[in-house]
Formats: sequence, C-alpha cells, structure tokens
Amino acid sequence: MQTHDSTAASGEQDPLAIESALLAELGAELVTTSADIDPRYFSAYNEAPGRRPLALVRPRSVGDVSRTLALCARLRQPVVPQGGLTGLARGGVALGGEIVLSMERFAGIESVDAAAATITVRAGTPLQAVQDAAAAAGFTFGVDLGARGSCQIGGTIATNAGGTRAIRYGVMREQVLGLEAVLADGTVLSSMNRMLKNNAGYDLKQLFIGSEGTLGIITRAVLRLRPKLGAPATAMCRVAGYDAVLRLWDRMRAVTDVVSFEAMWPSFYQYVSTHTPGVVAPFAGEDGFAVLIEFATSTPGGDAAQTLEACLADCLEAGLIDDAALATSERQARDMWTLREGLAIDELPHLVNFDVSLPTGELGAFAERCEAALRARWPDIVCVFFGHIGDGNVHIGVSLAELDDALADELDRTVYEVVQEMDGSISAEHGIGVLKRAYLACTRSDAEIALMRLLKAALDPQRILNPGKVL
Amino acid sequence: MQTHDSTAASGEQDPLAIESALLAELGAELVTTSADIDPRYFSAYNEAPGRRPLALVRPRSVGDVSRTLALCARLRQPVVPQGGLTGLARGGVALGGEIVLSMERFAGIESVDAAAATITVRAGTPLQAVQDAAAAAGFTFGVDLGARGSCQIGGTIATNAGGTRAIRYGVMREQVLGLEAVLADGTVLSSMNRMLKNNAGYDLKQLFIGSEGTLGIITRAVLRLRPKLGAPATAMCRVAGYDAVLRLWDRMRAVTDVVSFEAMWPSFYQYVSTHTPGVVAPFAGEDGFAVLIEFATSTPGGDAAQTLEACLADCLEAGLIDDAALATSERQARDMWTLREGLAIDELPHLVNFDVSLPTGELGAFAERCEAALRARWPDIVCVFFGHIGDGNVHIGVSLAELDDALADELDRTVYEVVQEMDGSISAEHGIGVLKRAYLACTRSDAEIALMRLLKAALDPQRILNPGKVL
Repeated sequence: MQTHDSTAASGEQDPLAIESALLAELGAELVTTSADIDPRYFSAYNEAPGRRPLALVRPRSVGDVSRTLALCARLRQPVVPQGGLTGLARGGVALGGEIVLSMERFAGIESVDAAAATITVRAGTPLQAVQDAAAAAGFTFGVDLGARGSCQIGGTIATNAGGTRAIRYGVMREQVLGLEAVLADGTVLSSMNRMLKNNAGYDLKQLFIGSEGTLGIITRAVLRLRPKLGAPATAMCRVAGYDAVLRLWDRMRAVTDVVSFEAMWPSFYQYVSTHTPGVVAPFAGEDGFAVLIEFATSTPGGDAAQTLEACLADCLEAGLIDDAALATSERQARDMWTLREGLAIDELPHLVNFDVSLPTGELGAFAERCEAALRARWPDIVCVFFGHIGDGNVHIGVSLAELDDALADELDRTVYEVVQEMDGSISAEHGIGVLKRAYLACTRSDAEIALMRLLKAALDPQRILNPGKVL
Repeated sequence: MQTHDSTAASGEQDPLAIESALLAELGAELVTTSADIDPRYFSAYNEAPGRRPLALVRPRSVGDVSRTLALCARLRQPVVPQGGLTGLARGGVALGGEIVLSMERFAGIESVDAAAATITVRAGTPLQAVQDAAAAAGFTFGVDLGARGSCQIGGTIATNAGGTRAIRYGVMREQVLGLEAVLADGTVLSSMNRMLKNNAGYDLKQLFIGSEGTLGIITRAVLRLRPKLGAPATAMCRVAGYDAVLRLWDRMRAVTDVVSFEAMWPSFYQYVSTHTPGVVAPFAGEDGFAVLIEFATSTPGGDAAQTLEACLADCLEAGLIDDAALATSERQARDMWTLREGLAIDELPHLVNFDVSLPTGELGAFAERCEAALRARWPDIVCVFFGHIGDGNVHIGVSLAELDDALADELDRTVYEVVQEMDGSISAEHGIGVLKRAYLACTRSDAEIALMRLLKAALDPQRILNPGKVL
C-alpha cells in the first residue's frame, strides 16, 4: 500500500500544460512559473533545497484557493499546501510533480470579538501576529512555540502544533472553534463556528486539524482567546533524578498558574550549558536534571514571582529540588529559555531530531531504554533528551560522526522500536509528513491506518492533496 | 435526501429471524427478546414509551459488541446504541425496526494513571462513578451535569456533553485522550492514546465524539483528569441587565478560579424563585438578572470563599452588581444550584426545551428577538431564558396552554429562524438526535451536510448505525 499511496495522482502531467492552465485560470499575478520559483518555497527548515515544484500559486482570497483546486481536480494535478515551512517532518515540500500553493498572501486578522473572546484570522497569518493582536485586545493566545515569527496559523492548525503552553491551554486543536477549508474538488467548506458549545451535527473541522493538508486546505479560522496573563515568573531548578522530576510535577501541576514545565535530562543540560554562547547557566550541569518552570497568572493582584518563590521554597524544604534560580530580570528569563530551546545542539554533526510521546510517568524509563538501545549499537553516540514532560512529550537529539540514509533508517528504527514496545507515539507534535511515514505502523494499528485511508479516499479520491504525506 | 437517509438499512427484517440469529450468536444471557424488553429501554427522558425494539443486546465485553455488529452488518439489521437515555434529542431510542444495544453492563473503571493524570473507563460507566474515582485518586473530572448519576460516559462522549464547567475545562471532547469504538462491520478500532500530545496521523477519535452513535459504537476511553479542587464557594448576584452581566463576565473570566458562570434571565428567576418548594431564594425576583458564580481553586492554601468575596466586593463597588449573596453553608449553595437547574419549569404545561448557542455578546439581543418573535405569534406564551453564557449556551423553556405536532413544529421554526438569522447553533450541547434533524439546515450549510453524508456513507455504507439520527 505504501508505494501505491506515495504515487501522485497521475504523475503524467505535462509541466508546461499545467503552467499554462494555471496562468489562464488565475493570471500571472498569482502564478509563478517553475523556473522563477525562489528556492525558499522548496526548502524544508534547516535543509538544502528539495524538488522544484511545477508552479507556485499564491492566492489572495478563498476564491483563488477554490479556483486553483477546482482546476487541479480537473487536471488531476497534485498540490502541496504550504505555510511557513517551519515543520520538522517535511510536510510542506514538494516531492516531485506537484504545484505548491503558498498561503502567505492570504494573511491578516479579520476581527476580534472581545465579549466572546475569539479572533478570526486568515491562514497565512504568522502565529506571532495572532499573539500580538490577542495582546492588543487584552487577551493571551494559548499556543506558543519557537517558530512563532515565521510559522503560519494555517500550518499550525494543519499540523496541530503543540509547544510550551499545552499543559495550561492545550494544543492547537483546543484553540480552534471554527474553520474554513477548501476541499479537493474546490468546494469551500465554511464551518466558522464562534461558540465554545456547538453540537449541531458532526464536528467537521476536526478532519482538517492535524491532517497536514491531505484532506483539505485550511483558509480561515475562529480561535479562542484566553484571559491576559500578568508578567511571567521564570525559574530553573536542579532535580536529582526523573523520579524527583515527577514528584515536582505532581506538586506543580496543582497550581493553576503554571504555564510551562520543561525538563532537561543531564546530558542535554550539560551540553547546552557549556555550548550556548553569551548565556550564563544558572548552575553547573553535573549530574542532575534541570527543570524550567514558567508561572503567570490572570488573577487581578496575583503576583507570579511571589507565588513561584513560595512554591520553590516549599519544594526545597520538602527535598524535591536541590537548587533553584528565580530569574530576576527579563534577560535572565530569556537565558533560561535559550538553554531550554537548545539551539546549541543544532550544531552537533548530523543531528537527527526525534519528537515522541509517552505517558509522563514512563518518560524516565523510556529515556534510559532508548539511550541503552542506541548505545548498544553505536557506543560513541551523542544522545540528549529534553521536552514538555507535563504533556508526555520528549524530544531527542541524536548525533553520529557519520550518517547516510541506511544509518538514518537504522537510527529511526532503533528509537521507534522502543517507542512501540512502550506503546508511545512516534510523533508528539511535529506530525508525520514525509519523514515518519514509513514508521506510522509503529504507533498506529492496521485498523487505524485502514480508517485513515478510507477517509483519504472519501475526501480526496484522486489523491491530489499533499500526496505522499502522512499515508 | 431526508427521506432517503431516515429509512433504516433494509426495513425488511423478519423480527423472529433477527431474534434467533442474535440468540444463536450471543446466547440468551446477552439477548433479551422483543416481548421481554422493559419499557425503560425505549423511553426517552420524561417521555412516554416509544417504539419497542426488535431485541435488546447487553454486551459484557468489547468482543460482544464486535460480534453483534458483525452479525447486524451481515443481516443489514439497524442498531441503536444506548447509554443512560438522559439525552434531550431522543438520540438513544428506537424509531422502529432496530435492535437496541445497551452498554450498561460494560461498565467500570479500568485504571487510573496518577503521574499522567488519566483514567481509563468503559462506556457503560455512569459519569458520577468517573467523578468519584477521580476524586478518590486525588483529582477532579472536568465535566459535570445534572444527569451525572444516570448518564453513561459513552453517551456523554457520543453526544459531546457540555454542562456547567465548560468555561474552565471545556466540553467532553476536551477530556478524551484515547477512544475505542466498534465500526459498523464489527471492526474494533482501538485508539487508546494516553498522552496530551500525539500527532501520529489522523485523530480518528474525533469522528466518534459528538456523532451520536451514527459512525461507530464507543466502548472504552482514556480521559484526562484535572488537579483536585478545594471546597467550592458559591454566590448569587443580582445584575441590572444583560450589558451588566457581560461586564461582570468580562471581570470574572480573568480569574482562573471561576468554575461556573450561569445567568438567569428575569423571567426565569422570577418563576423558579417562586415555584421551587423548600428553597429560599437569596433575593426577590423583580426585574434583574440573577447570576450564579462558582469558584474553586487547586492552588495550595488558596481560599475560594475569600477570593470570591473580595471579587464581589469589588464588583459591588464598581456598580457591576446590585446585590450579592455568598452561600455560607452547603445547603445554601445547593439551593442556589437547585434554582439554576430549574426543575420547577418542568412543571409548566407542554414545556418545550431549546438549547442554542450564540457568541456570548449576542445572547442578550438574541433573547429579546426570540421572545418578541414568539410573543408576536402567541401573546400569552411563557418563555424563560437561562444558561451557561460564558460558553455562549442559552437554554429556553417555552410553554403554551395547548400543543400539537403542528404547533410544536411552528414553535421550533420560530426559534430556529432567529438563531439562523443571527448565525448561531440550534444545538449547543444536546445534539441533533431525532428532534432537531429536520432543522439541521438552519445551522449548517449544504456543503457541510454533504460532507457529513459522505462520512456516514464511508463509515456506515449500509446505514445500520443509529439510522434516522442526526442526518
């Protein structure tokens, strides 16, 4: 089935005929011909350019998206919908023979409803613009992640992005009240619900959230806003081992003011605390875990720093933590986040990133088993663990001195075998895209994959929407 | 299309042949023959018994459910999945020619994972048993509603139940991490994810949440648990008009400790405060709105009563409220909730309930327009509004001295026309079932209904799952 699905709808397009048909339907203002496409439209994050698309379409309206898909359906022409291209599973790049449909020009905030606490936005809007508009209206937006400046809200919905606030506000799916998407035949499906409660028939928007553009192209959304948070308080704690991290989490999760709870395994903290230029680490990275905690409250008069300080004093006394540093300036808080974001590990040779999830209580054992399995095969491997453990999500950075495709596959299989044995997920927040497609069966059953294929066949019978991704 | 879809799969079943086939496959312990079925299995909440089913199956395992559906698929025999039968849209009752599959014997808590804060439960478990198990493990369950003692968790998931805590924890959909369902052909689809983050392919569980048993039968679920809340503080406030209610909500929603914010329009409060035996209303029901606020905190050392009292003092000073009564005993708090639950209005002659949603800021105008439209047609109509306005959900109780089917339909159309004009939903939390099926197009577009039908055809091509419901 793999090969079957990875084939594009027809694969027999005449590139010039596609170009002319698109130009005739949409005009030169919306269509860039193949030779003129800037490589950034076919380069995944941190990677060399991939396959050049047959054409680039940059719609300015929902009608433009609809006309593009109606034409592609007639011509059986595969389409890759594209957001900010910040994903790590290569879901937004062309594999060969597709046109790319970039949403970057269909951007902007359409409206804010303060009484209902909702914001209506276009797919091409950067996440940060949504956050800024929320703040300007006296609210907070529930999702935040490192790529906020360049990722697009449509892409974050299509991949159900997670990030660092999921323990407080949930992932992207929980922010979406209403959605508009264009189906494979060009039909505009507008489900722009504006209420927290609406049970009038099937909740169709769920089909498009997290399905990576394989069932429809997201054009607009109604998103929830949250009460504005006061100034955050940030602290880094040193914790003896994963069991102590769990006890600390158990204590902290009861406090509604916790926004983030991020754990760094000793090997990760040791590496980033000594390899991040310009950042002073709050403590040396010997053997302990480091936990970054961010607090913020919306309660009037609430003082996050005071609450966090009192919590940490209790935890020190109870022996849950060995040491704690409360950031006393924005600069110190930013440094703590810089360590946690771990850009330093991007410099490791042939870095391979993993993004898996398991129940929080099992992450400690998982990390041990995973590292042991990797080290049994590659004694000199560099292997660091970190993540949003409150939501069961751990990231793994792995580096080998040499890497080729066969080794990369072996690396993947080694990690995913442990995930499979422990009944976890091979993708916590980055999706499946192209990179994890071959491993989907490690984490989903035959019955589940059969139902996914059934949905794909029902919604995109010609398989023109992002072919070769997910399934 | 309506007639087409409302027809059961074949309608040509020989009732005796169905009985014998079920008995042969499942045995007399699981199958009750038609004549022996207790009327409670074919009576909707508060209504006279409806159509007697061809048989009643009460499975004891997922395998039993699977064998039942595999047999029904072979025989093209329609099936009505049934929970606690507490729904108000008649989604769980037979319309004629179906067998009923009651989940009541497949009940119980399977496990609690304290580190991950999840609970694994069987579909037939009453909501209250889930709440109790959560409390025993040191947690709170996120959904609460009046029927907690008799509704089943499978039914609350199948109808995406809402209730009184949605502003804090979301509706049922937000509590479900993993789900197991049996498909129309008997396939067991197990998606028992245990993590807050899992983006490995399509999120199939969403298909079964809120689709009222028309796409599959829910058998088990993994649910989120929330930090245990301290003792709640409850207050009732008198507020001059809907604009003031909105200002009060705007102030209150910023306080994370708010669990419930329930508004009673003057006509509702006047009626229940004078017609609820044994309850002392905190203030007389002249012209104002009454707002019930419940506070509870999970922050160690937090005092909900103190916080609420301080908040209310501020609101009085700011002129947002005219009067406030803080419950000083459990009894007083229960009385406030009894008023809000409004069982007194059940005594009104020929009561018809509506459950609609619109953005919070528009509910005041909606209630005025809706009442004006009803009064223009029936000058003596009794018509009361109340609800969970923080999530946009308002309930309407309407009573006419005389009522027949034609008048009931005219009543529905009058209310739903106003909902449609204001772009709201005809079902906030009770689903579509049978009762609202004819009005689905008031609230969903042709493209949406076409996509719902496409999903139904893909997942249940013989239309044996709860036929005549939703679509």
